[in-house]
Amino acid sequence: MRATVLHAPGDVRLEEVADPRIVDDTDAVVRVVATCVCGSDLWHYRGINDVPSPRRIGHEFVGVVEEVGSAVRSLRSGDFVIAPFKFSDNTCPHCQVGIQSACSVGGLWGIDDRQGRTVDGGQGEYVRAPFADGTLVTVRDHDESMIPSLLALSDVMGTGWHAAVAANVREGDTVVVVGDGAVGLCGVLAAAQLRASRVVVMSRHESRQKLATEFGATDIVAARGEEGEAEVMELTRGVGADAVLECVGTGQSMDTALNVARPGATVGYVGVPHGVELPIGAMFGRNVGIAGGAAPVRQYLPTLRDAVLGGHIEPGKVCDMDLTLSDVAEAYRAMDERRAIKSLLRVS
Amino acid sequence: MRATVLHAPGDVRLEEVADPRIVDDTDAVVRVVATCVCGSDLWHYRGINDVPSPRRIGHEFVGVVEEVGSAVRSLRSGDFVIAPFKFSDNTCPHCQVGIQSACSVGGLWGIDDRQGRTVDGGQGEYVRAPFADGTLVTVRDHDESMIPSLLALSDVMGTGWHAAVAANVREGDTVVVVGDGAVGLCGVLAAAQLRASRVVVMSRHESRQKLATEFGATDIVAARGEEGEAEVMELTRGVGADAVLECVGTGQSMDTALNVARPGATVGYVGVPHGVELPIGAMFGRNVGIAGGAAPVRQYLPTLRDAVLGGHIEPGKVCDMDLTLSDVAEAYRAMDERRAIKSLLRVS
Repeated sequence: MRATVLHAPGDVRLEEVADPRIVDDTDAVVRVVATCVCGSDLWHYRGINDVPSPRRIGHEFVGVVEEVGSAVRSLRSGDFVIAPFKFSDNTCPHCQVGIQSACSVGGLWGIDDRQGRTVDGGQGEYVRAPFADGTLVTVRDHDESMIPSLLALSDVMGTGWHAAVAANVREGDTVVVVGDGAVGLCGVLAAAQLRASRVVVMSRHESRQKLATEFGATDIVAARGEEGEAEVMELTRGVGADAVLECVGTGQSMDTALNVARPGATVGYVGVPHGVELPIGAMFGRNVGIAGGAAPVRQYLPTLRDAVLGGHIEPGKVCDMDLTLSDVAEAYRAMDERRAIKSLLRVS
Repeated sequence: MRATVLHAPGDVRLEEVADPRIVDDTDAVVRVVATCVCGSDLWHYRGINDVPSPRRIGHEFVGVVEEVGSAVRSLRSGDFVIAPFKFSDNTCPHCQVGIQSACSVGGLWGIDDRQGRTVDGGQGEYVRAPFADGTLVTVRDHDESMIPSLLALSDVMGTGWHAAVAANVREGDTVVVVGDGAVGLCGVLAAAQLRASRVVVMSRHESRQKLATEFGATDIVAARGEEGEAEVMELTRGVGADAVLECVGTGQSMDTALNVARPGATVGYVGVPHGVELPIGAMFGRNVGIAGGAAPVRQYLPTLRDAVLGGHIEPGKVCDMDLTLSDVAEAYRAMDERRAIKSLLRVS
């Protein structure tokens, strides 16, 4: 089959690799229908994270089950499924409390498992899905037009949702979303779904501001750093936000998130931290906490799937570039150059 | 009147100072009945925090209202009151959501106010209490024997309670309390009151272990650092704690707290941070959050007062040294030398 391999920063290629097959009896093989490129893939593509040797990549996909291992109970060949960005058995103690992203036997697509066996990346034609019952979530009765939104649940929408849940967004809240990437935009959508009455998005790109507004943002702050923080404080009459979603992961974005949180508020953070140092003294004095991390997308998938199927949310709108798998190099370039918020790749 | 003045590290004296009087019409003057020395007073006494010039000290007291300003509505002369460790107007936006410790016009006893006017410390004969309606909580029908427990609500019990609330302790939880000072012990009591089914206290002092057990601890881990963490992980079958209370404030104690938290758990932290660096990457991967800070004792005072009056909690047991105000220097020495968990000073 063909799959995407990242050889070095800036060098991403579609290549022939071994076809996946059932290895454990809890596996399924999934034919990928659509996949996409994640902002976190860019950390590797840009060389900010090390790429010591060529590696498979991609951790977001939807597809059709081709084959299941003998122990798989909830899936059968032909099922349309969504994969969360990490696989998990959904039975270990961490999964049982809904933190499947910390599953004691789970892992990330594209990184070899604990036994050193290949785990396919999502940006390919087929994927061996470990712990298929625990990992994959079936979708019935969707129509073709919903594919981008179902795919968005794999990571960005589940992650934006996690930020909002972790920040404890409640009805009537004033929420600030730091970041206008796909996750930030999904965070806006999540905050609106959770009935925040005011959703302030910090965004300086016009196309993203527009989508944020469509997703439920009521206010836009284009300035960054201290100037942006001052604008938020003015919007909230000096009080600060009831809940803050940190959807970037840089030191500056976290500082802003903490500074605009009102005393007692929580910053829900989902941007993979790069260069973040938490000002514990200031947090202590103001009782501002942080919660979040790698999103347990698997926990939220059934709810969010139903919200897509019911027409309540359309997170697929963050995919503003629609390509095929052969165009994977362009898909990365477009996101790297900020020509696209998120690139979708049709596979089969 | 006589009041305690900290002149320099190790040099604490009882001295004649000006009698307090009503300055603002929202003030009350309180005759102090009992006060005590706090672990956080020791940061100054030990010179870990700067003492640039002589200063009033003490932020925990109970007493009797002597006089009220013309705008005070809820108090009258003769009322027995508890003071939280910070004063607050209880009407600003931060107070309204229960974070009175971040009151926009509040402050700490013993530190001059924003207008540069003296705010008395709690370790003296009388105190001018700003925003008396917002700050002081009245107690009716207590008996003399309850004074240590009512006094403990001023800070240590309210702070231990905050750690448990911030850590989101729920019925049936396994809770780890890091620290066996007065706050840690009160954290044990709080976790037990909130119906944790297992309360593990990290303590290596026999007298404190004993009191922790009396307060509801089910397990004791005497080891510290990695060894202590390994013991907790063994006690929790490798899962970690559902909630962790960090009641010390050092780098080592926070590391331990984060390391023994299960994925998805929250560390409720109330130890004033000294040398704490948060490992954001590890926290992200495991979805371990932190919440807490300077406790909004005022929020909890009515509930905790009623728990004391009803005989449900007896946090005053942490005061294992009972002296008079004249003995203030000995009260500090005893705590500094760890001869006492907490020194109580009878005043009038």
